[in-house]
This record gives sequence, structure tokens and C-alpha cells, in this order.
Amino acid sequence: MICYSNPRKSAFICGYLCALLVSLPVIAMAQSTVRDYRRAHERTIIDEFTRLLAIPNIASDAPNIRRNAQFIFEIMQRRGLKPQLLEAKSKNTPPAVYGEWKVAGASHSIILYAHYDGQPVDPKQWTASPPFQPTWRSAAMEAGGQIVTLPASGEINSEWRLYARSSSDDKAGLMGILTAFDALRAQNQKPSFNIRFLFEGEEEAGSPHLGEIIDLHKDLMQADAWIICDGPVHQSGRKQVVFGVRGDQNVDVTVYGAKRPLHSGHYGNWAPNPAMTLSRLLASMKDDSGRVTIAGWYEGVEPLGDAERRAIAEAPAYDDELRSELGLARTEGDGKSLMEVINQPSLNINGVSSGDVGALARNVIPTTATAVLDLRLVKGNSYRKQVQHLVDHIRKQGFHVIDHDPTDIERKQHALIAKVIARAGGYDAERTRMDLPISVAVINAVQSTSKDRIVKLPTSGGSLPLSIITDRLKTVTITVPIVNYDNNQHAENENLRLQNLWDGIETLAAVMMMKPS
Amino acid sequence: MICYSNPRKSAFICGYLCALLVSLPVIAMAQSTVRDYRRAHERTIIDEFTRLLAIPNIASDAPNIRRNAQFIFEIMQRRGLKPQLLEAKSKNTPPAVYGEWKVAGASHSIILYAHYDGQPVDPKQWTASPPFQPTWRSAAMEAGGQIVTLPASGEINSEWRLYARSSSDDKAGLMGILTAFDALRAQNQKPSFNIRFLFEGEEEAGSPHLGEIIDLHKDLMQADAWIICDGPVHQSGRKQVVFGVRGDQNVDVTVYGAKRPLHSGHYGNWAPNPAMTLSRLLASMKDDSGRVTIAGWYEGVEPLGDAERRAIAEAPAYDDELRSELGLARTEGDGKSLMEVINQPSLNINGVSSGDVGALARNVIPTTATAVLDLRLVKGNSYRKQVQHLVDHIRKQGFHVIDHDPTDIERKQHALIAKVIARAGGYDAERTRMDLPISVAVINAVQSTSKDRIVKLPTSGGSLPLSIITDRLKTVTITVPIVNYDNNQHAENENLRLQNLWDGIETLAAVMMMKPS
Repeated sequence: MICYSNPRKSAFICGYLCALLVSLPVIAMAQSTVRDYRRAHERTIIDEFTRLLAIPNIASDAPNIRRNAQFIFEIMQRRGLKPQLLEAKSKNTPPAVYGEWKVAGASHSIILYAHYDGQPVDPKQWTASPPFQPTWRSAAMEAGGQIVTLPASGEINSEWRLYARSSSDDKAGLMGILTAFDALRAQNQKPSFNIRFLFEGEEEAGSPHLGEIIDLHKDLMQADAWIICDGPVHQSGRKQVVFGVRGDQNVDVTVYGAKRPLHSGHYGNWAPNPAMTLSRLLASMKDDSGRVTIAGWYEGVEPLGDAERRAIAEAPAYDDELRSELGLARTEGDGKSLMEVINQPSLNINGVSSGDVGALARNVIPTTATAVLDLRLVKGNSYRKQVQHLVDHIRKQGFHVIDHDPTDIERKQHALIAKVIARAGGYDAERTRMDLPISVAVINAVQSTSKDRIVKLPTSGGSLPLSIITDRLKTVTITVPIVNYDNNQHAENENLRLQNLWDGIETLAAVMMMKPS
Repeated sequence: MICYSNPRKSAFICGYLCALLVSLPVIAMAQSTVRDYRRAHERTIIDEFTRLLAIPNIASDAPNIRRNAQFIFEIMQRRGLKPQLLEAKSKNTPPAVYGEWKVAGASHSIILYAHYDGQPVDPKQWTASPPFQPTWRSAAMEAGGQIVTLPASGEINSEWRLYARSSSDDKAGLMGILTAFDALRAQNQKPSFNIRFLFEGEEEAGSPHLGEIIDLHKDLMQADAWIICDGPVHQSGRKQVVFGVRGDQNVDVTVYGAKRPLHSGHYGNWAPNPAMTLSRLLASMKDDSGRVTIAGWYEGVEPLGDAERRAIAEAPAYDDELRSELGLARTEGDGKSLMEVINQPSLNINGVSSGDVGALARNVIPTTATAVLDLRLVKGNSYRKQVQHLVDHIRKQGFHVIDHDPTDIERKQHALIAKVIARAGGYDAERTRMDLPISVAVINAVQSTSKDRIVKLPTSGGSLPLSIITDRLKTVTITVPIVNYDNNQHAENENLRLQNLWDGIETLAAVMMMKPS
């Protein structure tokens, strides 16, 4: 029956069948029991999930973030997971919530990680529904989805979307993990690993205390692997396993005009306009094709290995569909695919602001203009060096670079002044080799739950501070994402496609049930 | 006694004394009576002024704008000025408030014009005090002025500042005009002109209905001159008379990224960032020196006449002081003075916005980036042509220019799309010759109230839709500003230096008392 003329495709079919033959018997049973459990408990799962989503979860909002932690603590306590709130030394820090499923006779452990905090929200931009008022839609709003209410009984349409901050990123991960546990335990399944759970509360703030929490609780944190449940599945809808993340560093850049706002008529074309100054500075940072023109930007990037290059070549081509769906006639990267370009460091403008636009716009020359930059790093980059390259570039454009608002003396001495602040919480990229036994075990477990060939991604475009973990513990990190890629993660109108949670529960249960190699 | 070696200075002293000799006897008497009246009525004037300032006055806020009109109507009625609300045909349009001081035997009229609406406010930017809660400070906030309360009795320190939207722009003009009238009438002064009053309610929105109101009431609007009381005195503190205004046109420019906000990690350096696209576009519009690089921008500019060039040469040099005060090491215009460069058309960025900055910044690629541009025009420019030059330039940068958010088809066809909207209310520049008899009369009247040589400005940097008036009526416009130049006009924390109102009352009374030539 294997009669494909394409040798790559034949190899794939063979590899795929082999993977199935190895892992299918054990796991397929688990998958069907997991699915039965989920079908029988949909309402309970959704009820618990929406109650969690209704608690505002911005890392800087100390009282509410603690309400989240307390809620998670309680639902883990009810499950008998003996949860603990792991606190950092400094006050008002979101605690991590830890628990464990001890398996008799298991000598190895894995940790399943998710985070319960979310990105900041600007409620007025949430046109679908308020960010902390979980709301169902019959489909994505962009696809015409309308607000719907859950039926009184019966199955819920799994194409429905649940709109709320962190519905995808990353409370879905947390609920997926705990529900997978529920399903396995209800069926008396016995994993080969001790299963540890760690739910962090300030990942979106750059995990400034995760290292400290690991240091304080090293015994709890040891594991053969940290399985990170965060981020979306592949754009094609296929499941994926991700072996690396980009590093991340945010930088605020502010440039200055006159000390007070000026009437744009009385002073326009005499007083310099900081919005123009900033535009010129930002424009100097990239060329037409989107390549970063900052000297040293691509220095030191570590090349991919064979397994990684093969995985990229094998991944489904999806860029054209994606461009079409996103309404983009052209993308950056000189024709390279998305999967390729995310193996390069990036420079993104998260936001710019100067004066006002829309109804509040006035005829003024603003006093300042600010941009927030997002630097993504790949294996081989250093976040500190990347900031230095940026600062050097800004200096080369003629700016006096400072870390404070300029004094009168500085204003007198320098026509161009930029305040450049690297935000706390920067970190480097991380990548686990795909050919390690634990990597292969995770790939097989996830593949066992999917009839489509899963995608193996050397590096995710997104970031997690995984170096904080791997620098401290002799372990590796492997990311198993579950949510839909079009979830509006980090933006307004974040949402989860329900079927992704259902599939994710099965994926995570399979990972929990994998065998040590 | 005239022994200056600088011939320009000698000529000035001579010209100045001549002006004094001609006009001083008549006007000086009026000035002292006006000052006496003001001193005796300070509390009443301030009380009426602060009550007016407490009424929100954004032109688009129909209910409140009408409360302003009603308030002004009532205080004019109490003065016996037989006010009328002049309505445009379209509903919810701010009415103009008209009144007249009929002088027995006077066959000529002048109109004193001010506007009672103000620029939009963003209350959270008003760090001094809320925009519609008039608040006194002991000095400008930037100079350390503290909040103070009026003393129970006695003279009020005239260096104090009154903070509120329109405290300077332009309710000060309105109160100055009505109080000058009070002072003159209380002393039974008899002007040579009929004095007409016109207070407009949507100047900051570009006076979209002023032309219609003039057309509907042409008989009321006829005058030898419209005296416009708006804008600030010279930066040196000297009084000034202004003979022209720049034209004005606001343009909104929006550029597009993907149809939905994208995670900056998963899509950064693949999906184009609209903030970068906009930065590159804006940067293409000006060179290093601030000169506009848009083709045709400086075409057709009408050169200044002899009187105008002389007035510029005679004006006090003030640019160095201004740069120092504003904290600017360098200004645009290749070394030209502020007074010179405002005789050229300008391009200003009023505001730019894309994504968020500060605490709300998230790691996203925004969907759009918007700039509001302010085009100032001088005599010889056409606002329609200037917009066309801008659009042509944007096209030359490779953009498909449209007037709506792009459709899916347009997105597929064009990598670069800009929505360009010229806001309603654009108008051309206007300039009255300085050597007309009425021009000379106004100069002499204002000069008679000042021991310093007044400044004669061919063109103000600011704009007023004066062509709406001069296109319809056989008249000229001459602007007599009264407020302090550092009033934060159009921006947050707008304020008035009290002494400017006091001086302005005397200025305006002198103008009302001038003789027809």
C-alpha cells in the first residue's frame, strides 16, 4: 500500500506508522477513557474554567492575582494534590501554585507548567466583551461569531469560542492539565512518572521571581523534563511540540520636543516635533524588507541542527493561507517562511504614542514621543548585548542616550535626546535537542493522540523564560501547546476554541502517561 | 536726546514718538478710566469669567456648548446689548452669539470677534487641575506655581494664573471685549464706530458653519474691520497686532498591518508592523532640518510686502530666550527666526498612535497605526492643493491611498495601504495689508496703551478661518491678541496670566475708541 513516489512522504508515512505501532496500544486506551471522562464532565469543567477566567489576572494587580492563586489552590486541594503557595521573598509578588501526583514506585518526575497571569488589558479595546466577563460566541468574532448562551443541557458545540483574557494564554493550559489529571485518576490510570504541577503567576511580566522560587524549592522542582503548556498549536490546526523559545526583552524609548506642549500653528516648522523625531529614529532600524539594520543584530545566532532543519522542511506549508487570512499581501523575511524567520532575532514595535489621535487630537506639538520595542532573541543571542546594539544604534543616529527625563542642562547641550529603558525581566532564548530520548517520548505521546502528522518546531516565535529553569536545574523544557493559533493572544478579544481545550486534555493526558526511556 | 548710533533704533524711537503724539491725548484718558473701572470691579469680572470657564465647551458636546451660548446671551442681555443666538440650519450646531453697541451718529461699524468653544480635552493629562474646574496658581506650574485661593478682599496678584480650558483660548478674548465695553460705557465714553460683537461656538472645530451664519445675517456682519481677539501676545510680553493667519487643514493617515493583532513573538519579523510602516512614511516627509520634502509644498507662496518685511526686521529678537525657556538646543528652519518661518507652510504631527505604551503595552503587532497631521498654509497656498501634494507623496512611497478601511480584496492587491482623510473645516490663509488706514488706526490704538513698542506681525503662526469672512464681506480682519504666549493653548493645563486680561481690557477699549480714518 505504500506506493507514494515522493520519497520524503514515504519516509514520513513509515516514521509515522512506526510511532503509532510503538505507542498506540497503551495510549489509545488512555485517550478514549480521557475523552469519555471529558464528555461526561463538560459542564463541570467549563464551570470551573469560567469562574477562574472571571478573576482579573494582571500580574501587577496584587489583590486579584492572589485571588487567582487562592482559587487554584482550592481546586487543587479538592483534587487531593496537596497544593502549596510558593512565595518569593519580596511582598506582593504573585505566588506560584505547586502540587504533586505521587505515583507509587515512580522514581522519575515530570513537571507540567502553565501560568495563571495574563497580559494587561485596555477594556475599551475589548469590543467582543469585557476581558473578565467570559462570554461565548458561536465562532470567532472576525468570522461573524455571535454571542450565544450555553444550552441548558446536551453537548456544547465545540467550535464555539470562549472570550476572556487568558481564555487561551494560559488558563486553558492550567485547566487542560488539571482536567487531564482528573480523567486519568478517575479511570485509575497509573503514570510512569511522578506528575508535578507548577502554575506561575507572573509569566507575562517576564517571570521576575521564578528563579528565586526555584532556588527556594529545588527539591520540588527536579524533573526529567518540564512540560510547558503554553502557546498555540500550529496555524494549520495540527498539534505541535515545541523545543525552543525565543528570548525576550522590552525596551521603552522616549524622545523629546519642547518642555511644554506648543500650539502647532504658532510654533510649527520652528519647534522640533518629537513624533517626527521618533519616526525618523524607528525608520532607521529596519530596511524595506523588514531586516533589522542595527549593527550586530544577527551576530552569534546558533545554527540549527539536522533534526531541526528536517522538522522545518517537513512542516506543512501554511504561509499563503496565513497571509490570506490575515489580509497581508506581503510579509517580511525576503520570501522565507514564518517557521524559518522565527529562528532569527526580531525587532517589533509594540506601541507608539505621541499627542493624541481621533477625537482628542489637538493642534499641538507634543512634548514627547514614546515607543515600546519588543526584542525577540534566538539561541546564541544575549538580551543584554541586544539592548547594547540598540543603544549604540540610537547613539549613531545622533542621540544623547539617557535613562531619565532630560535636565535643563542636558536639553541645552543636546538637540536629540532619547531616554532608553530596558524593562526588567529580559531573558535569553532556549532550545532543547529534538533527538533526546525524552524529546522523542513527548513527540510520540502527542502524535498518538492525532491522526494528522504533528508539527515539531525547533523554536517557537513566542518566548518563555525557560533559561531561568534550565540554568538552575539539570532538566530540559519541552512545550506542548494546546490552544487555537487565532486566539488573539496578548491582544484584545482573546478567545479559546472549545475543541482545542478538549483536544488539549487528551494531549496532556498522553504526555502524563508517557514511558521513561 | 536722540543720540543712538544704530540708525534702525533711531528711526524706531522717532516713529514711536510720532505714534504717541498722534494718538496719546485722546486714548490715554480712556486708558486710565478703563483701568480705574477694572480695579473697582476685579471681583465681579473674575466671578463672571470663572463661571463661564466652568461650563465645558467642546464644540462637539452639543448640550454643554449651548449652555455656554446661553450664559453669554444672558450676560450680554444684562448689559443691554440685545443679544441674538444666530443659528445655522443644521441642528446641534453651536450658535454664534451676536450683540451690538449702537452709537448715535456713527455711520461705520467694527466687529469684535472671539470664540467661546475650546479644544478637546483629555482630563487625565490635566495634571494641574481638571479642565473645567477653574483653579488659581501663584505662577505657571512649570515655574513652580502652587494652587492658591483668592484673598477675601484686596487686590489680586496679577501674576497669578487661572488654569482652565479656554482660560486663554478664547474665553479671555470674550471677557476682555465685554469688560472693555463695560468700562467705556460706565464712563460714558462714545466710540466713533458702532461696536458689534460676535462670539462663535465652533472655531476650534474649524468654523464649519460660520460662513452659513454670515450668509444668513449679512446685514449684522458688515463692518469696516473685524477685530479678532484670539491668540497670544508676543513671546517677549509685548503687545502685538497681527495682520494675517495661516490656513489650516487636518489630515488623518492610517496604515495597516494584519487584520487582527498578532503575538509579536509568533509573528514578529514575518508580519509587517504598521507602526514601523507609519514611521517610515512620516520620516519621508521631512528632512533633517525640518524642511518638508513633499513635492510642491512650498509652491505659490506669496512674498511679503515692504511694510511686512520691515515689521519682521523691527520685531524684538526673541528666539534665543524662547529656545532656552522651551529646552530646545536646536530649532528647525536652518537658522531662520520663528517670525520668518511662520511665513512658510508647515507640516506638523499632532499625534501618532499604534498599540499601547506604558503599563498597557503588550507584546503584539498592532493592526493599524494612525497619525493626525496638521498642515498650516500661508498666503498663496490652497488647502485642497496641499492635501493633494500630501496624497501624491504618500502614493510615491508605494502606498495605495483610499478613504476607507481596506477590503479583503484591496488587502490582497496592495502591500502598502494608507487611508487618508482630510478633515472637514480646512481653509486658506489670509493677510491684510499693514498700510491700510484701518490697519494704521488699530496699530496706533494698541500702541497708545503700551510704553513698549508693539510688535506688528504680518502673519500669525496660528490659524483662524478668516477667509470665510473676507470671501463673503467687503471687510478686512485684524487680530488683536491679549493672552500670555505661554498659556498652553490647545494642550493640557491651559492657563491665563491675570495681568494679560487686565492689559487686554485696556487694549480692546482703545481699539473700540479708535477714530475712522
